[in-house]
Amino acid sequence: MTILGVDPGIATVGFGVINADRNELRAVKYGAITTAPGRPLADRLVEIERDVLELLERFKPDAVSVEELFFNTNVTTGINVAHGRGVILLAAAKSQVPLFEYTPLQVKQAVVGYGRAEKKQVMDMTRRILRLQSVPKPDDAADALAVAICHARASTSLLKDYM
Amino acid sequence: MTILGVDPGIATVGFGVINADRNELRAVKYGAITTAPGRPLADRLVEIERDVLELLERFKPDAVSVEELFFNTNVTTGINVAHGRGVILLAAAKSQVPLFEYTPLQVKQAVVGYGRAEKKQVMDMTRRILRLQSVPKPDDAADALAVAICHARASTSLLKDYM
Repeated sequence: MTILGVDPGIATVGFGVINADRNELRAVKYGAITTAPGRPLADRLVEIERDVLELLERFKPDAVSVEELFFNTNVTTGINVAHGRGVILLAAAKSQVPLFEYTPLQVKQAVVGYGRAEKKQVMDMTRRILRLQSVPKPDDAADALAVAICHARASTSLLKDYM
Repeated sequence: MTILGVDPGIATVGFGVINADRNELRAVKYGAITTAPGRPLADRLVEIERDVLELLERFKPDAVSVEELFFNTNVTTGINVAHGRGVILLAAAKSQVPLFEYTPLQVKQAVVGYGRAEKKQVMDMTRRILRLQSVPKPDDAADALAVAICHARASTSLLKDYM
């Protein structure tokens, strides 16, 4: 099963494609879609949709896993990121790829084993699970891989429940 | 000049098409795009994009005017509405229709004449400006007509400044 994990944003949208076969998870590709800060928001959304559609076309994932937004800090930033997240969900739905959403708590629990893990721990465990030499850069790509791992583990445990 | 005003949302997206010639503003069409609360967010976003693209195709507006989000109440609601707003901006940008954004304060100032006007006053002035028999329903449609009027007046005053 191929999973595309996405860490939503406007300036930087992290993505991570992983392959989940039996008990092994493998990173296929990761990186970030970036848009120029000076451009109008609507044009940046057009770029994000185009690039996400291109990722879906290129890697043909069986599932898209997107982190839910959680804001205790800046509401204005949150509103902007949510514009981008709307376009990401739209692209996945139009491509008819099954879509899964996980909270930051669920991602931490799935990757590290407990929900109050530090960001650094999540990144290090992401590196270890995927057997990478170093923590993926940028941070947004590492976050995207983590949410992809979260879906791989969630769907595995669902399978265990039903088989 | 034909202007499409949009009041962003997920369950209800208000729209209002007006025609602005010389000093007269006329309502061409108004109403609301609605999506079913039980459906997944991503599917509702697909419906919103499709219906906004259809409005753009049908009325071929010279400008799209969209209200900016302002949240002092429920952040969760705000995040959802922002998902929808992202898709609305995307549809306008992909159709290459010039896009304008106004704050609630700017809309009130343009329609009623001062920024602290009550919602009821904005609706009543919208009705009067467009010479409608009653206040447009639903409220989201009236809000969309108000943001369209705001752009008509803003662009008129810009013309005055430069001519």
